[in-house]
Amino acid sequence: MRRFVVVGHRAVTSSNFNLNDLCGSAGRLDVLLRCINSVFFLSHDLRRDAELYLIFKGEPDPPKTIKFVGNELKYLNPDERSTAALIRNALMKKIKKSEIRSTPGIYISRNNFEDTIEKLANISKLIYLREDGKPFDQKETDQDYTFVLGDDRNLSKEEEGILKKFQPEIISLGPISYHSDHCITILNWLLDQNTNPYESK
Amino acid sequence: MRRFVVVGHRAVTSSNFNLNDLCGSAGRLDVLLRCINSVFFLSHDLRRDAELYLIFKGEPDPPKTIKFVGNELKYLNPDERSTAALIRNALMKKIKKSEIRSTPGIYISRNNFEDTIEKLANISKLIYLREDGKPFDQKETDQDYTFVLGDDRNLSKEEEGILKKFQPEIISLGPISYHSDHCITILNWLLDQNTNPYESK
Repeated sequence: MRRFVVVGHRAVTSSNFNLNDLCGSAGRLDVLLRCINSVFFLSHDLRRDAELYLIFKGEPDPPKTIKFVGNELKYLNPDERSTAALIRNALMKKIKKSEIRSTPGIYISRNNFEDTIEKLANISKLIYLREDGKPFDQKETDQDYTFVLGDDRNLSKEEEGILKKFQPEIISLGPISYHSDHCITILNWLLDQNTNPYESK
Repeated sequence: MRRFVVVGHRAVTSSNFNLNDLCGSAGRLDVLLRCINSVFFLSHDLRRDAELYLIFKGEPDPPKTIKFVGNELKYLNPDERSTAALIRNALMKKIKKSEIRSTPGIYISRNNFEDTIEKLANISKLIYLREDGKPFDQKETDQDYTFVLGDDRNLSKEEEGILKKFQPEIISLGPISYHSDHCITILNWLLDQNTNPYESK
Protein backbone atom coordinates (compact mmCIF):
# COMPACT_ATOMS: atom_id res chain seq x y z
CA MET A 1 0.00 0.00 0.00
CA ARG A 2 1.21 3.50 -0.84
CA ARG A 3 -0.28 6.48 0.95
CA PHE A 4 -0.05 10.21 0.44
CA VAL A 5 -0.92 13.10 2.76
CA VAL A 6 -1.29 16.58 1.26
CA VAL A 7 -1.94 19.64 3.41
CA GLY A 8 -4.33 22.18 1.87
CA HIS A 9 -3.34 25.23 3.86
CA ARG A 10 -6.20 27.42 2.62
CA ALA A 11 -8.50 24.73 1.16
CA VAL A 12 -12.09 25.69 1.95
CA THR A 13 -14.00 23.67 4.54
CA SER A 14 -17.45 24.57 3.26
CA SER A 15 -19.23 23.20 0.20
CA ASN A 16 -20.15 26.76 -0.70
CA PHE A 17 -17.44 27.32 -3.30
CA ASN A 18 -17.62 28.08 -6.99
CA LEU A 19 -16.78 25.21 -9.36
CA ASN A 20 -15.71 27.86 -11.87
CA ASP A 21 -13.10 29.33 -9.53
CA LEU A 22 -11.23 26.47 -7.89
CA CYS A 23 -8.00 28.44 -7.51
CA GLY A 24 -9.37 31.56 -5.86
CA SER A 25 -12.61 31.09 -3.95
CA ALA A 26 -11.81 27.47 -3.05
CA GLY A 27 -8.38 28.21 -1.51
CA ARG A 28 -6.23 26.51 -4.15
CA LEU A 29 -8.41 23.44 -4.18
CA ASP A 30 -7.12 23.00 -7.76
CA VAL A 31 -3.77 21.84 -6.33
CA LEU A 32 -5.45 19.13 -4.26
CA LEU A 33 -7.59 18.03 -7.20
CA ARG A 34 -4.50 17.44 -9.30
CA CYS A 35 -2.99 15.45 -6.45
CA ILE A 36 -6.06 13.17 -6.44
CA ASN A 37 -5.55 12.58 -10.16
CA SER A 38 -1.84 11.80 -9.69
CA VAL A 39 -2.37 9.37 -6.83
CA PHE A 40 -5.02 7.24 -8.51
CA PHE A 41 -5.11 7.45 -12.29
CA LEU A 42 -3.58 4.91 -14.58
CA SER A 43 -4.50 4.63 -18.23
CA HIS A 44 -8.06 3.23 -18.22
CA ASP A 45 -7.63 2.08 -14.62
CA LEU A 46 -7.32 3.28 -11.03
CA ARG A 47 -4.58 2.40 -8.58
CA ARG A 48 -6.29 0.16 -6.06
CA ASP A 49 -3.24 -0.07 -3.76
CA ALA A 50 -3.23 3.66 -2.95
CA GLU A 51 -4.80 5.97 -0.40
CA LEU A 52 -4.80 9.75 -0.16
CA TYR A 53 -5.47 12.01 2.85
CA LEU A 54 -6.22 15.65 2.07
CA ILE A 55 -6.07 17.95 5.09
CA PHE A 56 -8.39 20.95 4.68
CA LYS A 57 -7.25 23.87 6.83
CA GLY A 58 -9.09 26.80 5.21
CA GLU A 59 -12.10 28.75 6.44
CA PRO A 60 -14.85 28.61 7.59
CA ASP A 61 -14.81 25.32 9.53
CA PRO A 62 -11.34 23.71 9.81
CA PRO A 63 -9.95 21.16 10.21
CA LYS A 64 -11.42 18.47 7.99
CA THR A 65 -9.70 15.49 6.42
CA ILE A 66 -10.99 13.83 3.27
CA LYS A 67 -9.69 10.30 2.75
CA PHE A 68 -9.68 8.51 -0.62
CA VAL A 69 -9.43 4.72 -0.67
CA GLY A 70 -8.29 3.35 -4.02
CA ASN A 71 -9.93 -0.05 -3.85
CA GLU A 72 -13.35 1.44 -3.04
CA LEU A 73 -13.36 4.51 -5.32
CA LYS A 74 -16.14 5.05 -7.83
CA TYR A 75 -17.30 8.01 -9.94
CA LEU A 76 -13.79 9.48 -10.10
CA ASN A 77 -12.96 11.17 -13.39
CA PRO A 78 -9.58 12.68 -14.24
CA ASP A 79 -10.68 16.28 -14.79
CA GLU A 80 -10.54 18.91 -12.07
CA ARG A 81 -14.13 20.06 -12.22
CA SER A 82 -15.83 16.69 -11.75
CA THR A 83 -13.47 15.81 -8.91
CA ALA A 84 -14.26 19.17 -7.29
CA ALA A 85 -17.92 18.17 -7.34
CA LEU A 86 -17.07 14.99 -5.38
CA ILE A 87 -15.18 17.12 -2.83
CA ARG A 88 -18.17 19.44 -2.57
CA ASN A 89 -20.41 16.47 -1.82
CA ALA A 90 -18.06 15.41 0.97
CA LEU A 91 -17.91 18.93 2.44
CA MET A 92 -21.74 19.01 2.54
CA LYS A 93 -21.73 16.24 5.15
CA LYS A 94 -22.36 17.15 8.76
CA ILE A 95 -19.51 15.55 10.66
CA LYS A 96 -19.74 14.73 14.32
CA LYS A 97 -17.08 12.58 15.92
CA SER A 98 -16.40 9.74 13.61
CA GLU A 99 -15.55 9.50 9.93
CA ILE A 100 -18.46 9.55 7.45
CA ARG A 101 -18.60 8.04 3.98
CA SER A 102 -19.58 10.57 1.35
CA THR A 103 -19.43 8.61 -1.92
CA PRO A 104 -17.77 5.20 -2.53
CA GLY A 105 -14.14 5.41 -1.43
CA ILE A 106 -14.40 8.99 -0.12
CA TYR A 107 -14.59 9.65 3.63
CA ILE A 108 -14.65 12.89 5.60
CA SER A 109 -13.71 13.42 9.24
CA ARG A 110 -12.75 16.05 11.81
CA ASN A 111 -9.22 14.66 11.94
CA ASN A 112 -6.47 17.24 11.83
CA PHE A 113 -2.93 16.88 10.49
CA GLU A 114 -1.57 15.40 13.72
CA ASP A 115 -4.41 12.85 14.06
CA THR A 116 -3.76 11.71 10.51
CA ILE A 117 0.01 11.50 10.81
CA GLU A 118 -0.16 9.69 14.14
CA LYS A 119 -2.47 7.05 12.71
CA LEU A 120 -0.35 6.55 9.59
CA ALA A 121 2.94 6.44 11.53
CA ASN A 122 1.65 3.29 13.20
CA ILE A 123 1.05 1.41 9.98
CA SER A 124 3.63 2.71 7.52
CA LYS A 125 7.01 4.35 7.02
CA LEU A 126 6.63 8.14 6.93
CA ILE A 127 8.45 10.02 4.18
CA TYR A 128 8.64 13.80 4.24
CA LEU A 129 9.27 15.34 0.85
CA ARG A 130 11.45 18.42 1.14
CA GLU A 131 13.89 20.10 -1.23
CA ASP A 132 16.89 19.46 1.03
CA GLY A 133 16.21 15.74 1.56
CA LYS A 134 18.27 12.85 0.28
CA PRO A 135 17.37 10.93 -2.90
CA PHE A 136 14.57 8.40 -2.51
CA ASP A 137 16.11 4.95 -2.34
CA GLN A 138 13.43 2.36 -2.00
CA LYS A 139 15.23 -0.52 -0.35
CA GLU A 140 12.37 -2.58 0.94
CA THR A 141 10.01 -3.36 -1.87
CA ASP A 142 7.22 -4.58 0.39
CA GLN A 143 7.41 -1.50 2.60
CA ASP A 144 4.22 0.53 3.16
CA TYR A 145 5.11 4.17 2.61
CA THR A 146 3.23 7.34 3.53
CA PHE A 147 4.50 10.44 1.69
CA VAL A 148 3.74 13.82 3.25
CA LEU A 149 3.62 16.99 1.13
CA GLY A 150 2.35 20.58 1.23
CA ASP A 151 0.06 22.06 -1.42
CA ASP A 152 1.46 25.13 -3.20
CA ARG A 153 3.06 26.03 0.15
CA ASN A 154 5.55 23.99 2.12
CA LEU A 155 4.59 22.60 5.48
CA SER A 156 4.49 25.30 8.16
CA LYS A 157 6.98 25.26 11.04
CA GLU A 158 4.20 23.92 13.26
CA GLU A 159 3.25 21.14 10.84
CA GLU A 160 6.89 20.24 10.40
CA GLY A 161 7.27 20.05 14.18
CA ILE A 162 4.34 17.64 14.43
CA LEU A 163 5.65 15.48 11.59
CA LYS A 164 9.17 15.32 13.01
CA LYS A 165 7.88 13.85 16.28
CA PHE A 166 7.18 10.73 14.24
CA GLN A 167 10.71 10.64 12.79
CA PRO A 168 10.02 10.66 9.07
CA GLU A 169 12.70 10.01 6.52
CA ILE A 170 13.33 13.25 4.59
CA ILE A 171 13.71 12.75 0.87
CA SER A 172 13.98 14.93 -2.20
CA LEU A 173 13.35 14.45 -5.91
CA GLY A 174 16.39 16.55 -6.81
CA PRO A 175 17.47 20.16 -6.94
CA ILE A 176 14.40 21.35 -8.86
CA SER A 177 11.23 22.15 -6.97
CA TYR A 178 8.12 20.52 -8.42
CA HIS A 179 4.37 20.88 -7.98
CA SER A 180 2.93 18.44 -5.43
CA ASP A 181 0.93 16.50 -8.01
CA HIS A 182 4.03 16.09 -10.17
CA CYS A 183 5.97 14.81 -7.13
CA ILE A 184 3.23 12.22 -6.56
CA THR A 185 3.33 11.10 -10.21
CA ILE A 186 7.11 10.66 -10.01
CA LEU A 187 6.94 8.81 -6.67
CA ASN A 188 4.24 6.48 -7.99
CA TRP A 189 6.41 5.74 -11.00
CA LEU A 190 9.48 5.12 -8.86
CA LEU A 191 7.51 2.70 -6.69
CA ASP A 192 6.20 0.99 -9.85
CA GLN A 193 9.77 0.26 -10.93
CA ASN A 194 10.17 -2.11 -8.00
CA THR A 195 6.79 -3.73 -8.17
CA ASN A 196 6.85 -3.92 -11.99
CA PRO A 197 10.46 -3.58 -13.03
CA TYR A 198 11.41 -3.21 -16.68
CA GLU A 199 13.41 -6.44 -16.35
CA SER A 200 10.35 -8.55 -15.79
CA LYS A 201 8.83 -7.56 -19.14
CA MET B 1 15.44 22.03 -25.58
CA ARG B 2 12.81 19.37 -24.86
CA ARG B 3 9.74 19.16 -27.04
CA PHE B 4 6.50 17.23 -26.79
CA VAL B 5 3.84 16.47 -29.40
CA VAL B 6 0.43 15.28 -28.23
CA VAL B 7 -2.30 14.24 -30.67
CA GLY B 8 -5.80 15.28 -29.63
CA HIS B 9 -7.79 12.81 -31.71
CA ARG B 10 -11.18 14.38 -31.03
CA ALA B 11 -10.06 17.78 -29.65
CA VAL B 12 -12.45 20.43 -30.97
CA THR B 13 -11.24 22.86 -33.62
CA SER B 14 -13.78 25.57 -32.85
CA SER B 15 -13.78 28.01 -29.94
CA ASN B 16 -17.43 27.21 -29.42
CA PHE B 17 -17.00 24.76 -26.55
CA ASN B 18 -18.20 24.83 -22.98
CA LEU B 19 -15.59 25.63 -20.32
CA ASN B 20 -17.75 23.62 -17.89
CA ASP B 21 -17.55 20.46 -20.00
CA LEU B 22 -13.97 20.04 -21.17
CA CYS B 23 -14.17 16.23 -21.29
CA GLY B 24 -17.34 15.87 -23.33
CA SER B 25 -18.18 18.79 -25.59
CA ALA B 26 -14.51 19.72 -26.11
CA GLY B 27 -13.39 16.24 -27.26
CA ARG B 28 -11.25 15.33 -24.25
CA LEU B 29 -9.55 18.71 -24.27
CA ASP B 30 -9.01 18.06 -20.53
CA VAL B 31 -6.28 15.54 -21.42
CA LEU B 32 -4.41 18.14 -23.49
CA LEU B 33 -4.78 20.76 -20.74
CA ARG B 34 -3.12 18.47 -18.24
CA CYS B 35 -0.31 17.87 -20.74
CA ILE B 36 0.29 21.63 -20.94
CA ASN B 37 0.58 21.74 -17.16
CA SER B 38 3.02 18.81 -17.10
CA VAL B 39 5.26 20.20 -19.83
CA PHE B 40 5.72 23.66 -18.32
CA PHE B 41 5.03 23.93 -14.62
CA LEU B 42 7.69 23.95 -11.96
CA SER B 43 7.05 25.15 -8.45
CA HIS B 44 6.65 28.94 -8.80
CA ASP B 45 8.29 28.83 -12.21
CA LEU B 46 7.83 27.72 -15.82
CA ARG B 47 10.17 25.54 -17.84
CA ARG B 48 11.67 27.92 -20.39
CA ASP B 49 13.55 25.17 -22.26
CA ALA B 50 10.37 23.36 -23.33
CA GLU B 51 7.93 23.47 -26.23
CA LEU B 52 4.64 21.67 -26.76
CA TYR B 53 2.73 20.97 -29.98
CA LEU B 54 -0.92 19.98 -29.58
CA ILE B 55 -2.50 18.53 -32.73
CA PHE B 56 -6.25 19.19 -32.84
CA LYS B 57 -8.03 16.67 -35.05
CA GLY B 58 -11.64 17.03 -33.90
CA GLU B 59 -14.59 18.66 -35.63
CA PRO B 60 -15.57 21.07 -37.12
CA ASP B 61 -12.43 22.43 -38.77
CA PRO B 62 -9.40 20.12 -38.48
CA PRO B 63 -6.48 20.06 -38.52
CA LYS B 64 -5.05 22.78 -36.30
CA THR B 65 -1.84 22.79 -34.31
CA ILE B 66 -1.35 24.93 -31.23
CA LYS B 67 2.28 25.49 -30.28
CA PHE B 68 3.43 26.57 -26.81
CA VAL B 69 6.88 28.14 -26.44
CA GLY B 70 8.18 28.04 -22.87
CA ASN B 71 10.43 31.06 -23.00
CA GLU B 72 7.66 33.31 -24.32
CA LEU B 73 4.68 32.03 -22.31
CA LYS B 74 2.60 34.42 -20.22
CA TYR B 75 -0.78 34.21 -18.51
CA LEU B 76 -0.48 30.45 -18.02
CA ASN B 77 -1.99 29.16 -14.78
CA PRO B 78 -1.88 25.56 -13.64
CA ASP B 79 -5.62 24.87 -13.50
CA GLU B 80 -7.52 23.29 -16.38
CA ARG B 81 -10.20 25.92 -16.77
CA SER B 82 -7.98 28.97 -17.19
CA THR B 83 -5.74 27.10 -19.64
CA ALA B 84 -8.86 26.09 -21.59
CA ALA B 85 -9.69 29.79 -21.93
CA LEU B 86 -6.26 30.39 -23.52
CA ILE B 87 -6.94 27.54 -25.96
CA ARG B 88 -10.31 29.05 -26.76
CA ASN B 89 -8.64 32.36 -27.58
CA ALA B 90 -6.28 30.59 -29.95
CA LEU B 91 -9.13 28.69 -31.65
CA MET B 92 -10.94 32.01 -32.25
CA LYS B 93 -8.17 33.13 -34.61
CA LYS B 94 -8.80 32.95 -38.33
CA ILE B 95 -5.85 31.08 -39.72
CA LYS B 96 -4.77 31.40 -43.31
CA LYS B 97 -1.48 29.94 -44.42
CA SER B 98 1.06 30.86 -41.82
CA GLU B 99 1.19 30.48 -38.06
CA ILE B 100 -0.49 33.20 -35.98
CA ARG B 101 0.34 34.30 -32.43
CA SER B 102 -2.68 34.16 -30.14
CA THR B 103 -1.28 35.20 -26.75
CA PRO B 104 2.39 35.39 -25.69
CA GLY B 105 4.01 32.02 -26.32
CA ILE B 106 0.92 30.47 -27.93
CA TYR B 107 0.70 30.04 -31.72
CA ILE B 108 -1.92 28.41 -33.92
CA SER B 109 -1.51 27.08 -37.45
CA ARG B 110 -3.06 24.81 -40.06
CA ASN B 111 -0.20 22.34 -39.66
CA ASN B 112 -1.22 18.72 -39.39
CA PHE B 113 0.56 15.87 -37.59
CA GLU B 114 2.88 15.14 -40.53
CA ASP B 115 3.87 18.81 -41.01
CA THR B 116 4.73 19.05 -37.34
CA ILE B 117 6.68 15.80 -37.14
CA GLU B 118 8.60 16.55 -40.33
CA LYS B 119 9.69 19.93 -38.99
CA LEU B 120 10.72 18.54 -35.61
CA ALA B 121 12.55 15.55 -37.11
CA ASN B 122 14.94 18.03 -38.69
CA ILE B 123 15.91 19.69 -35.43
CA SER B 124 15.65 17.00 -32.75
CA LYS B 125 15.70 13.30 -31.97
CA LEU B 126 12.19 11.84 -32.22
CA ILE B 127 11.02 9.57 -29.43
CA TYR B 128 7.80 7.62 -29.75
CA LEU B 129 6.32 6.59 -26.43
CA ARG B 130 4.65 3.19 -26.67
CA GLU B 131 4.01 0.43 -24.15
CA ASP B 132 6.23 -2.07 -25.95
CA GLY B 133 9.24 0.25 -26.28
CA LYS B 134 12.57 -0.11 -24.55
CA PRO B 135 13.45 1.82 -21.37
CA PHE B 136 14.43 5.45 -21.91
CA ASP B 137 18.20 5.69 -21.65
CA GLN B 138 19.28 9.26 -22.11
CA LYS B 139 22.85 8.89 -23.30
CA GLU B 140 23.51 12.28 -24.80
CA THR B 141 22.79 14.93 -22.23
CA ASP B 142 22.84 17.78 -24.74
CA GLN B 143 20.48 15.99 -27.12
CA ASP B 144 17.30 17.82 -28.22
CA TYR B 145 14.45 15.36 -27.83
CA THR B 146 10.91 15.46 -29.22
CA PHE B 147 8.55 13.03 -27.48
CA VAL B 148 5.40 12.00 -29.36
CA LEU B 149 2.31 10.76 -27.51
CA GLY B 150 -1.41 10.21 -28.04
CA ASP B 151 -4.11 11.71 -25.82
CA ASP B 152 -6.37 9.15 -24.12
CA ARG B 153 -6.00 7.08 -27.29
CA ASN B 154 -2.82 5.69 -28.77
CA LEU B 155 -1.63 6.96 -32.14
CA SER B 156 -3.71 5.56 -34.99
CA LYS B 157 -2.15 3.18 -37.53
CA GLU B 158 -2.00 6.08 -39.96
CA GLU B 159 -0.29 8.41 -37.49
CA GLU B 160 2.12 5.66 -36.53
CA GLY B 161 2.92 5.14 -40.20
CA ILE B 162 3.72 8.84 -40.64
CA LEU B 163 5.87 8.91 -37.51
CA LYS B 164 7.81 5.77 -38.46
CA LYS B 165 8.89 7.36 -41.74
CA PHE B 166 11.07 9.60 -39.58
CA GLN B 167 12.60 6.65 -37.71
CA PRO B 168 11.81 7.53 -34.11
CA GLU B 169 13.28 5.67 -31.19
CA ILE B 170 10.48 3.72 -29.46
CA ILE B 171 10.63 3.89 -25.70
CA SER B 172 8.45 2.86 -22.77
CA LEU B 173 8.13 3.93 -19.15
CA GLY B 174 7.57 0.34 -18.03
CA PRO B 175 4.88 -2.30 -18.05
CA ILE B 176 2.18 -0.03 -16.61
CA SER B 177 0.24 2.24 -18.94
CA TYR B 178 0.07 5.87 -17.78
CA HIS B 179 -1.90 8.97 -18.71
CA SER B 180 -0.11 11.18 -21.23
CA ASP B 181 0.36 14.05 -18.77
CA HIS B 182 1.88 11.66 -16.23
CA CYS B 183 4.28 10.35 -18.89
CA ILE B 184 5.37 13.92 -19.60
CA THR B 185 5.95 14.63 -15.90
CA ILE B 186 8.10 11.50 -15.58
CA LEU B 187 10.06 12.27 -18.78
CA ASN B 188 10.70 15.84 -17.64
CA TRP B 189 11.98 14.51 -14.33
CA LEU B 190 14.21 11.93 -16.01
CA LEU B 191 15.69 14.65 -18.23
CA ASP B 192 16.21 16.83 -15.13
CA GLN B 193 18.35 14.12 -13.58
CA ASN B 194 20.97 14.67 -16.26
CA THR B 195 20.82 18.42 -16.38
CA ASN B 196 20.55 18.73 -12.61
CA PRO B 197 21.79 15.45 -11.15
CA TYR B 198 21.48 14.74 -7.45
CA GLU B 199 25.28 14.51 -7.30
CA SER B 200 25.72 18.19 -8.05
CA LYS B 201 23.74 19.25 -4.96
